[in-house]
Amino acid sequence: MSAVPHDAAAQAARRPLPETLLAALRTRFGERCSTTEAVRLQHGRDESPFPVTPPDAVVFCESSDEVAAVVRLAGEHRVPVIPYGTGSSLEGHLLAVQGGLSVDVSRLTRILRIDADDLTATVEAGVTREQLNAELRSLGLFFPVDPGANASLGGMAATRASGTNAVRYGTMRENVLALTVVTGRGELVHTGTRARKSAAGYDLTRLFVGSEGTLGVITELTVRLVPLPEAVSAAVCHFPDVASAVRTTIQTIQLGVPIARCELLDVNAVRAVNRQSGLALREAPMLLMEFHGSPAGVKEQAETVQAIAAELGGEDFEWADTPEERSRLWAARHRAYFAGLQQHPGTRSVTTDTCVPISRLAEIVEASVADAEASGLPYYIVGHVGDGNFHLAYLVRDGDAAERATAEAMSERMVRRAIAMEGTCSGEHGIGLHKMAFLEEEAGAGGIALMRAIKQALDPFQILNPGKIFRN
Amino acid sequence: MSAVPHDAAAQAARRPLPETLLAALRTRFGERCSTTEAVRLQHGRDESPFPVTPPDAVVFCESSDEVAAVVRLAGEHRVPVIPYGTGSSLEGHLLAVQGGLSVDVSRLTRILRIDADDLTATVEAGVTREQLNAELRSLGLFFPVDPGANASLGGMAATRASGTNAVRYGTMRENVLALTVVTGRGELVHTGTRARKSAAGYDLTRLFVGSEGTLGVITELTVRLVPLPEAVSAAVCHFPDVASAVRTTIQTIQLGVPIARCELLDVNAVRAVNRQSGLALREAPMLLMEFHGSPAGVKEQAETVQAIAAELGGEDFEWADTPEERSRLWAARHRAYFAGLQQHPGTRSVTTDTCVPISRLAEIVEASVADAEASGLPYYIVGHVGDGNFHLAYLVRDGDAAERATAEAMSERMVRRAIAMEGTCSGEHGIGLHKMAFLEEEAGAGGIALMRAIKQALDPFQILNPGKIFRN
Repeated sequence: MSAVPHDAAAQAARRPLPETLLAALRTRFGERCSTTEAVRLQHGRDESPFPVTPPDAVVFCESSDEVAAVVRLAGEHRVPVIPYGTGSSLEGHLLAVQGGLSVDVSRLTRILRIDADDLTATVEAGVTREQLNAELRSLGLFFPVDPGANASLGGMAATRASGTNAVRYGTMRENVLALTVVTGRGELVHTGTRARKSAAGYDLTRLFVGSEGTLGVITELTVRLVPLPEAVSAAVCHFPDVASAVRTTIQTIQLGVPIARCELLDVNAVRAVNRQSGLALREAPMLLMEFHGSPAGVKEQAETVQAIAAELGGEDFEWADTPEERSRLWAARHRAYFAGLQQHPGTRSVTTDTCVPISRLAEIVEASVADAEASGLPYYIVGHVGDGNFHLAYLVRDGDAAERATAEAMSERMVRRAIAMEGTCSGEHGIGLHKMAFLEEEAGAGGIALMRAIKQALDPFQILNPGKIFRN
Repeated sequence: MSAVPHDAAAQAARRPLPETLLAALRTRFGERCSTTEAVRLQHGRDESPFPVTPPDAVVFCESSDEVAAVVRLAGEHRVPVIPYGTGSSLEGHLLAVQGGLSVDVSRLTRILRIDADDLTATVEAGVTREQLNAELRSLGLFFPVDPGANASLGGMAATRASGTNAVRYGTMRENVLALTVVTGRGELVHTGTRARKSAAGYDLTRLFVGSEGTLGVITELTVRLVPLPEAVSAAVCHFPDVASAVRTTIQTIQLGVPIARCELLDVNAVRAVNRQSGLALREAPMLLMEFHGSPAGVKEQAETVQAIAAELGGEDFEWADTPEERSRLWAARHRAYFAGLQQHPGTRSVTTDTCVPISRLAEIVEASVADAEASGLPYYIVGHVGDGNFHLAYLVRDGDAAERATAEAMSERMVRRAIAMEGTCSGEHGIGLHKMAFLEEEAGAGGIALMRAIKQALDPFQILNPGKIFRN
């Protein structure tokens, strides 16, 4: 099946790790270079439905220089290098499909600088978004990109992650100012500056953001921060069907309302989070919204959206004004992924991630719901609908090839629809292993040729996370 | 002088255009392929202080396919290709330092689509921002990037332009969604989609944005649009000195006020625009601001900034509430460049373009003013200070090598300061010929090596605007 290019033949052809390389790594890293099965297995999987595909060794790095040293050694031996943060990829980014070394950066956890006056922070790649936000709270600031999972910022940059706040604050594309990257030759390079904008040369920062470890290993990043808004208000609104909720979102965006979060949950997702988080949300399609601004501004925004929703059959807003209520709701939303899986024990999730021009969102959601209903598989929908991005997750029994094939076929139909609507096969999860065939359709032969040329130029030994984004 | 690499030797070594190439171009383009001196001279200069350096021929293209045909022919003959839009570059981007063809895209003026429901427009590269905004007005939308000059959108993308609105709406980096580009092999490639965000593969769009014609020729672009705000208010506020105006800006940004425009003019700039535009602004340093939002939101923003300004010695705001008053003020601001030149007939401008982290802005502006005063040269300052970006323009007598050298030396000091402050040598004008040495300092050998590798990969015949961004 073209969408699932996990290649058993490539696996079988893996070379064992050269002994001299392993000896050099052990000399330098001691016990931080591990070949134990448990460690390798843990680093050979992520949240994707692919079979575990372990690396030959895992090196736990503690600095940019150590990462550079590993990449240099790997280059000398032409051995693949796969950066590993928290393992929360949904698309198979971390699987060692050609063997090699997993470079674990989760110990690079230093927050190097917070420049509150400039609204920037510089952190090591293993710092997670929750760690950074905990540090920022007392300063009245926050880092606005929130993919749900407590991912590492390095991983979020590598996959061009976004999430619930992106409709207002942008994605990692907009919020990364500068990077320290280990190149394919094992050299440390700094991209960007701490200035808010620049027209100085090629935009290397944004080339590495979203490159999924295939052009370099991100070891440090400087990100933009945002002052905590004076007023925050969250509300839920229930709708008779998914389409009305989506239409409310479309009109909100078209009117330019600066809504901070606008999340869709279908009835299946609401049911799952109710069970998992002990909530009593009405089991109907709903929008979970958040408004940021001055007290008057928040009120104005909410009134506008309420008026739109009312016209489209939305029920009255239920407000969550205290920080505790809001946290509870957002925590539940962030657990939707695991809540969905728990509803159907023994399943894994085949998750779609299309993003379309906002005017086409209702159409693609409705068509996808019809497909999902017809498939007979359990599924749920959550979506960052303010961006035109939503996830339909099919829950397939682990190891059930027929269910998996059905889900992948449905996913493929949805991606084709999104591309036909001038949208994208991936709004925020990246390509990884899972969407390589889709990227070929979306970018076309010309676009893929340019990407390959860049890959070849920046990864001369072809060791950086090979076999991801496009086949090599 | 390192900052002025205009190379007489390279000029002398220019090969004449191969006769077979010229014949092929004449066959295909007829009179739209011109070698007349007037046309060549007009295409061999821009608003930079460099001597006119004409191409060998100018080809007036009328479609993406025609551009592709020229690039293919140029590739066969290894002849340079320089894209030309409106000629408003300030950094020498358009000069034919290695001879070759100027590919004039100013006739690619079709607005291909406006998708009001998606807040996007797709245009040909020669469409100017004023043309697009005129078309959008009746739809209640606007395109928010405004560099002052009525530049072509293709040129604005190629130089990663920004301008007065960037503090709120971002630069071309944030506002270009998709491109059609002619590659170095003369192939048409589409990058990006009309979705608001994407995590699908390398960010080719942002690689071409800011590549100054050295990686491909942009022929079409899809840009983001913004709903016209419900309320708009503009105000001027005068300050005892430049530093107080800058400090007001810094605090405004640090508080997260979503100000739409925040422009500094020093006393020299105010004097120049008064003379040129028949205004009667008080001749003191001033901020020219604009607020967008709901009526209540605009009022809140303005009150916050007024309170900050008052504490720092700013005079009362003077409001410009009618569209006519606002247009008059902004038109005057946009004419500051020519107004400055007109104050000193026979001069050309050596313009700096540093951008620093906002907390360092007052310090660099003060140091730069001290340098400028000591230089004895006429100068003026305008700045998009909300971004940390400002321009100090030295007015040097055309052909006066000593004045030019003084100005370039001052410019060099300022860039060194900006880089030391973790800022950039170019906030929005690009590198062109003028800032190649500065880019080397800013990006470092490692960064330049990556850029060169990308250039080599995407421009295999080394024909795309050679000798710009970095020496080749």
